[in-house]
Amino acid sequence: MPIKKIALIMGSDSDLPVVAPAKKRLESLGIPVEAHIISAHRTPEAAAAFSKSARENGFGAIIAAAGKAAHLAGALAANTTLPVIGIPVKSSTLDGLDALLSTVQMPSGVPVATVAIDGADNAALLAAQILAVEDEALAEKLQGLKDQMKQGAIDKDIALQTKEW
Amino acid sequence: MPIKKIALIMGSDSDLPVVAPAKKRLESLGIPVEAHIISAHRTPEAAAAFSKSARENGFGAIIAAAGKAAHLAGALAANTTLPVIGIPVKSSTLDGLDALLSTVQMPSGVPVATVAIDGADNAALLAAQILAVEDEALAEKLQGLKDQMKQGAIDKDIALQTKEW
Amino acid sequence: MPIKKIALIMGSDSDLPVVAPAKKRLESLGIPVEAHIISAHRTPEAAAAFSKSARENGFGAIIAAAGKAAHLAGALAANTTLPVIGIPVKSSTLDGLDALLSTVQMPSGVPVATVAIDGADNAALLAAQILAVEDEALAEKLQGLKDQMKQGAIDKDIALQTKEW
Amino acid sequence: MPIKKIALIMGSDSDLPVVAPAKKRLESLGIPVEAHIISAHRTPEAAAAFSKSARENGFGAIIAAAGKAAHLAGALAANTTLPVIGIPVKSSTLDGLDALLSTVQMPSGVPVATVAIDGADNAALLAAQILAVEDEALAEKLQGLKDQMKQGAIDKDIALQTKEW
Amino acid sequence: MPIKKIALIMGSDSDLPVVAPAKKRLESLGIPVEAHIISAHRTPEAAAAFSKSARENGFGAIIAAAGKAAHLAGALAANTTLPVIGIPVKSSTLDGLDALLSTVQMPSGVPVATVAIDGADNAALLAAQILAVEDEALAEKLQGLKDQMKQGAIDKDIALQTKEW
Amino acid sequence: MPIKKIALIMGSDSDLPVVAPAKKRLESLGIPVEAHIISAHRTPEAAAAFSKSARENGFGAIIAAAGKAAHLAGALAANTTLPVIGIPVKSSTLDGLDALLSTVQMPSGVPVATVAIDGADNAALLAAQILAVEDEALAEKLQGLKDQMKQGAIDKDIALQTKEW
Amino acid sequence: MPIKKIALIMGSDSDLPVVAPAKKRLESLGIPVEAHIISAHRTPEAAAAFSKSARENGFGAIIAAAGKAAHLAGALAANTTLPVIGIPVKSSTLDGLDALLSTVQMPSGVPVATVAIDGADNAALLAAQILAVEDEALAEKLQGLKDQMKQGAIDKDIALQTKEW
Amino acid sequence: MPIKKIALIMGSDSDLPVVAPAKKRLESLGIPVEAHIISAHRTPEAAAAFSKSARENGFGAIIAAAGKAAHLAGALAANTTLPVIGIPVKSSTLDGLDALLSTVQMPSGVPVATVAIDGADNAALLAAQILAVEDEALAEKLQGLKDQMKQGAIDKDIALQTKEW
Repeated sequence: MPIKKIALIMGSDSDLPVVAPAKKRLESLGIPVEAHIISAHRTPEAAAAFSKSARENGFGAIIAAAGKAAHLAGALAANTTLPVIGIPVKSSTLDGLDALLSTVQMPSGVPVATVAIDGADNAALLAAQILAVEDEALAEKLQGLKDQMKQGAIDKDIALQTKEW
Repeated sequence: MPIKKIALIMGSDSDLPVVAPAKKRLESLGIPVEAHIISAHRTPEAAAAFSKSARENGFGAIIAAAGKAAHLAGALAANTTLPVIGIPVKSSTLDGLDALLSTVQMPSGVPVATVAIDGADNAALLAAQILAVEDEALAEKLQGLKDQMKQGAIDKDIALQTKEW
Repeated sequence: MPIKKIALIMGSDSDLPVVAPAKKRLESLGIPVEAHIISAHRTPEAAAAFSKSARENGFGAIIAAAGKAAHLAGALAANTTLPVIGIPVKSSTLDGLDALLSTVQMPSGVPVATVAIDGADNAALLAAQILAVEDEALAEKLQGLKDQMKQGAIDKDIALQTKEW
Repeated sequence: MPIKKIALIMGSDSDLPVVAPAKKRLESLGIPVEAHIISAHRTPEAAAAFSKSARENGFGAIIAAAGKAAHLAGALAANTTLPVIGIPVKSSTLDGLDALLSTVQMPSGVPVATVAIDGADNAALLAAQILAVEDEALAEKLQGLKDQMKQGAIDKDIALQTKEW
Repeated sequence: MPIKKIALIMGSDSDLPVVAPAKKRLESLGIPVEAHIISAHRTPEAAAAFSKSARENGFGAIIAAAGKAAHLAGALAANTTLPVIGIPVKSSTLDGLDALLSTVQMPSGVPVATVAIDGADNAALLAAQILAVEDEALAEKLQGLKDQMKQGAIDKDIALQTKEW
Repeated sequence: MPIKKIALIMGSDSDLPVVAPAKKRLESLGIPVEAHIISAHRTPEAAAAFSKSARENGFGAIIAAAGKAAHLAGALAANTTLPVIGIPVKSSTLDGLDALLSTVQMPSGVPVATVAIDGADNAALLAAQILAVEDEALAEKLQGLKDQMKQGAIDKDIALQTKEW
Repeated sequence: MPIKKIALIMGSDSDLPVVAPAKKRLESLGIPVEAHIISAHRTPEAAAAFSKSARENGFGAIIAAAGKAAHLAGALAANTTLPVIGIPVKSSTLDGLDALLSTVQMPSGVPVATVAIDGADNAALLAAQILAVEDEALAEKLQGLKDQMKQGAIDKDIALQTKEW
Repeated sequence: MPIKKIALIMGSDSDLPVVAPAKKRLESLGIPVEAHIISAHRTPEAAAAFSKSARENGFGAIIAAAGKAAHLAGALAANTTLPVIGIPVKSSTLDGLDALLSTVQMPSGVPVATVAIDGADNAALLAAQILAVEDEALAEKLQGLKDQMKQGAIDKDIALQTKEW
């Protein structure tokens, strides 16, 4: 059973800096990523087409990042039974609250797995967790990351004890 | 030039009571209405198909009502150059703020003409105003409504002067 | 039937940078624009006078931009049956939420077609859509813009496939 | 110097229950009240006319109550140099936040003295305080109210000490 | 490969009515559910213990529902590499906004897949989608649900055409 | 009848830049100002003492500026029957919303006349309007300001007609 | 060392139902309670006097409950070095957000230990925790409560396993 | 009775600048501080272990600072009967509102004494007040700080009277 791909969809190329940590994280876990610029409002047919064929095209989950009235994740979720992970992107007004509510408050029947505003790294980890449900090797990698994160915090705590501040 | 139709789209039949004043208002102005239950998330293809052919099917504007992560108006607007009017519908949490932001905060290139939360009557009046740009008779009807509304307020003010309260 | 003009009203000359994209967009579509600085609170008579005669003066719609307790669009809408489009302008506090609610939450009888905070480009497109209801040539231009926008997104997606990021 | 009148303006007769405590409070202080239903959006000319002549008509301050995109107080303030007191009225959505921001966030040059959401009693007391600046007898009445309020709280505290709860 | 279980954790038995649709949905899909009352604040050790052993105990995902300062989902996610789905529960104040932000705004490294406030049905569907990534039969059931939902909307639209309203 | 003084109270000297426009405006109107740094929380006795004797000390109104949990205006209002005008000051978090709600949402019996966040100029104008209720000369100055403001807007509109932008 | 008293101050007798759980909890822990109705705005001198002498009068902490622009806790904290615990009380508008921000956002130098909106039980527990810092017997009682709470949750979880729902 | 220690826990070393004023304040009062980096989500066992043994390890109170979905204070409070003071930390989105609600809206049974967003100095003062309940010398130091703060405000007021601004 070869590992499934993760789709990383963003509404605009201006979202690249926000989304980049997701790409980096997935690649560091050895998970194949396919990134696309697809807009729910500018290229709705591409959104529908991509989403409808995502499962048969070998994707295991879709990550979608969008700002303002962020419909992208929901539009993709409407057309697939794959898990869709939404990253609400902060824009120049309202501090991301608009994107958060537009992404998370989905009506019954069409869930979007929403992470924190600008939370690309967590979106990638969630996608990896989803793939890891049936992939012990990946689950161990994730556990490794968790252990590393824990050790990092412990090391910082130890360093703090002798630090001047 | 026969009068154009107004499309009245709602995401669910639970929106009927919120949307009803729009139907009533449009009919009272002699404007033909065609109402549909179409969901951006449950019947996305119907949404796209309706919207794409709306202009050639004789519609002059589309009114869309939806709650929560309200994508309906935006999804319709993505597929037409007709004006799309969005009614954010209040649901059981967040008092309609989610629907308002999901409807109004559209990205550049795809406007949605948003009215107040649960503002169906105003959505209908706005649709009528749009048709009335080139229809003097309808403009006069709207001016008549405005005059009537004004007279109503004046009458209430006069009545207040002799009322016990 | 000559094309109708669009009025572009702003409450203060400090709104010029926010409003400029609307002027540019309308001019690029060949739509005549007349811009004015009129304040609901400093020049209320000018606001009433402009709005009352806007239809007979050849306007097809009015765009109004204002910040904070943004009454401008509503004050204009009170005096005309033309569609009035409101642009809530972000100011130094509250991130535009005050202007958004002051613009969109209009009482029954006097709609304002509200676009996103600082959404001048969408206000212009909405005004053009309104004029295009009865103007096939303009509708085609708008469809052209839509197609162009779509192609732009598709091109960016293609470019992304070979881009290092 | 006869006492000045207080104008009590409301946007709709549905605001009567919210506004009634203001009328009662002013009358109990012996201050003449003149109440009107005037809408910034339905009867804008009445609003302007009332406000422009309010000073010469013997008013000392204007209280204005309105909900949603509450422009009434601001519209009156635009046309007078009398103090205008705004009561934001809670409506069926957003819990009064829309009315509060629409009333209080006035641009430089045109203040509205805003009280709490649905705060009609305080609006009346503020109007009385304004008249009392040059009216010692009224100031004493207000001090009497303050003393009474204080005594009421003290009495309740005493009662609490022997109350079962 | 036998189907994995879904854990349905709630912070208090007062959450049962909110959570019930998740149980019902999962059971209707033939997915084994194990429900528990575990509190991040009252039984933190149970939370940690459950979460740490969830993968080896045959769970495929964890759903956690909590209100107010809703830490439950995050506390479970801290101790597992399984996907954790958070349901923010509306309580008597703040309309669920506190629970939403406490659930979704997780720091980097520990994602929680957040659904809408009180969105238990979507939490269950998301859990099913996660299991369905590697389970074609379940994916087909989910597609069946989607088709049914679509047909339901279409039927309602047809019914609307002949309905009096 | 000599003109009454306006008290300009701020909670901290860090509020000086926010409050300065009020001082300037009052002085330009020939109204005597007395400014003080008094804190509801650091010098509560000074606040009570100042407020209790403000009327007899020749003040006509008190302006109070404070940020965060802004109690200053309310604390002063508790001890006087003079009108107290509150300026909510924006601080480093929450964009002034905390100060606005802490200032405006006063309980029944103790009004604070609240202006916009950081709205010092309007606070001064409101204080002047209060003094002008019984002072025709001041009322004329205020009308002069209003006329000037109107002319300024008209001039800017004229300038706009020939401006490149 | 006899146990210190806890002061339970509320702004109005309408707060009694909200505050009652605090009294009950403290009494059940054997902690003497003294309850008072004292208002920051109606009886500011009583507030100052109570607070200034609270330490010498044998109090160990003060709990203060108030709604809207909730200044009570802050006004008490201004006059004592005892810990002051604030309960923001939900009122008829804004769902308690006004009281929360007015209570918690205190300026540097005068802390208020704020608990959840309407969180009287937690205010009492926090007061008990403060007294228990130097009182082992009370600390054990609190640990007993914690154990009981834990056992309650465990019992409910066990019951859930055999419950139909 | 030797003075108890205060624990100063932060979720990440990026919180050091926010937390530093608390350390400084406690040290200036002669209160021993022990600072740690412990994360509710990355090192949950450390959090539980620290908290469970904090009382017997000589701590009198715990201060916990965290941002976003700030669970740290609550996670510590779950495992101790010591008072836990929460500092909500502002992060890059939502202006600290997420951290505030996640910290303060604790469920019944597990209080967190919450101070203002980024309010580290007040957290330290509150911790000192807690220790001072049974420590007269410390209480006098705190009263000294209060007096100093008061004198500082008085001095600034005096300086203001002769300052040009």
